[in-house]
Amino acid sequence: MKKLINSPDTVLADALVGIDAADHNVTVDFENRVIYRSETKADGKVAIVSGGGTGHEPLHGGFVGHGMLDAACAGAVFTSPTPDQMQAATKVVDRGAGVLHIVKNYTGDVMNFEMAAELAAAEAGIEVRSVVVNDDVAVKDSLFTAGRRGVGVTVLLEKIVGAAAEEGQDLDAVTALAEQVNSQGRSMGMALTSCTVPAAGKPTFDLPEDQMEIGVGIHGEPGRHREPLASAKEIAAQLVEPILSDLDFTGAPAIVMLNGMGGTPQIELYLMYGEVAALLEKAGITIARNLVGNYITSLDMAGCSVTVLKADDEILRLWDAPVQTAGLRWGR
Amino acid sequence: MKKLINSPDTVLADALVGIDAADHNVTVDFENRVIYRSETKADGKVAIVSGGGTGHEPLHGGFVGHGMLDAACAGAVFTSPTPDQMQAATKVVDRGAGVLHIVKNYTGDVMNFEMAAELAAAEAGIEVRSVVVNDDVAVKDSLFTAGRRGVGVTVLLEKIVGAAAEEGQDLDAVTALAEQVNSQGRSMGMALTSCTVPAAGKPTFDLPEDQMEIGVGIHGEPGRHREPLASAKEIAAQLVEPILSDLDFTGAPAIVMLNGMGGTPQIELYLMYGEVAALLEKAGITIARNLVGNYITSLDMAGCSVTVLKADDEILRLWDAPVQTAGLRWGR
Repeated sequence: MKKLINSPDTVLADALVGIDAADHNVTVDFENRVIYRSETKADGKVAIVSGGGTGHEPLHGGFVGHGMLDAACAGAVFTSPTPDQMQAATKVVDRGAGVLHIVKNYTGDVMNFEMAAELAAAEAGIEVRSVVVNDDVAVKDSLFTAGRRGVGVTVLLEKIVGAAAEEGQDLDAVTALAEQVNSQGRSMGMALTSCTVPAAGKPTFDLPEDQMEIGVGIHGEPGRHREPLASAKEIAAQLVEPILSDLDFTGAPAIVMLNGMGGTPQIELYLMYGEVAALLEKAGITIARNLVGNYITSLDMAGCSVTVLKADDEILRLWDAPVQTAGLRWGR
Repeated sequence: MKKLINSPDTVLADALVGIDAADHNVTVDFENRVIYRSETKADGKVAIVSGGGTGHEPLHGGFVGHGMLDAACAGAVFTSPTPDQMQAATKVVDRGAGVLHIVKNYTGDVMNFEMAAELAAAEAGIEVRSVVVNDDVAVKDSLFTAGRRGVGVTVLLEKIVGAAAEEGQDLDAVTALAEQVNSQGRSMGMALTSCTVPAAGKPTFDLPEDQMEIGVGIHGEPGRHREPLASAKEIAAQLVEPILSDLDFTGAPAIVMLNGMGGTPQIELYLMYGEVAALLEKAGITIARNLVGNYITSLDMAGCSVTVLKADDEILRLWDAPVQTAGLRWGR
């Protein structure tokens, strides 16, 4: 295992030190392993909390800041944070207008966020709502999930819902928007290589030098199938087709993300975006906005995923609203 | 070789299609393989041109846009662009106030930019100046270079000098600033793995599973030595020490970049930044600004580099000026 770490046991703790030193948008609570926005929101505004296992950076900690999250709870690598962390975050960020939890659909995350919401309501009287993101069209159930996995739409949802909360929309409106964005987004990923979890010290799965995995999950969960390495053009078709089969994206502006899994360089992501954009346009879809880069990663996995969100004028307006985080920054 | 490409022969052409589709800050001249700013500068402002071999993305094409470059010439992978490309770019972006070429110190790039400058002067009467960036403290000469290699300072220089040109500083001032930034910046890199050039189809060098290379170049050129894998803390010391031995960085605010080589995920870069920042602070250096991410890469190489720039109030002011590019964006 070749990694820039001190020890498999201290990856999260050491990374939090670096995040705290580097990112002036955030303040780290090292004891609870929660990343907070440095400039807190005004009273009366809905707060947004997310979180999950570490290893998907910049998600979620890199999306804490003006216009996006108020707090992100960091679990161990590929492991849900605990209800205690989520409850602590919820209590700190609440400004009397309620808190929305953004939860990726993995069994541990869903259970722990539910428990945290109940505790925060019971102990501090905080109104908590949740959205469970489940946009991955690859497989119905997986090692970590009942139902579809939550992947790339999480990034877009955190941006759009964060903007709505920032401008003062109430908890009902913010929650409804979150449900809408989740229902209108789909993703599909693929891997050229496995990732290596530091504590395991060896690749999560074996993928021969001439094979790729189509439909892989962000923790290295199995996808739909393996097949021989193919061209970027063929891979793009294998990612786009299941997305378009699942939802009709025509007749509305789309936000498209070409996401890197962590070990794939930017030049390959640009190249893949060119292929994906051409396929979407051929299918009659108008790409209104795009992201090309590493946004929801799987440690050092080589590969990529495609996310398509069916937007509208209001979603595009919120997308374009100012955001100032380590992972996304514009307009301010 | 596992890459998201169509063919080793079409990597650059296909990536340019993706860049053109994704990045609304730029327009691509596919024939000349030049990436131009979409909104051109006003007459009377100095224009900035850079470029080099492909494989270092986002450098240089991802730094074209308001507040940074006017054009970037893209060579084949790890190969200098031709004088024709540079001359074409220089003629298109000149607004009557002259053009600065930002050149990384590699033999081919230096020779070709020199020739392009002479041609642009002779044929179109354009006043061209050049800065040759040579910040890598690892080795004096290398496979591709006479003297020190140009690496991470290029990123900082393009931002700072781009801001000066944007606000209307003249060619003398912009050139002097470029020389100052180059003289006050130092870098040092390391690799956990080799990169693989698509046309070669196999790793540029062999690095055993238990070894790392200290002082590696951005084309996989040999560094100072190889040694057994070490902890992040020990690696940080091996990168910071040669930088601080080469120049006194105390008594001034520093801009520090912790750069990923392309195959290293963000969590490891944050972790390394924490180690590097602690060492710099211990040495009495005040970090005023930082970047942590993939800015000057080496295809899919795993590893990182550290760049430290001795700044001053004026350089920080230019650093903070608005920039809107795919690779760096803030303040607008």
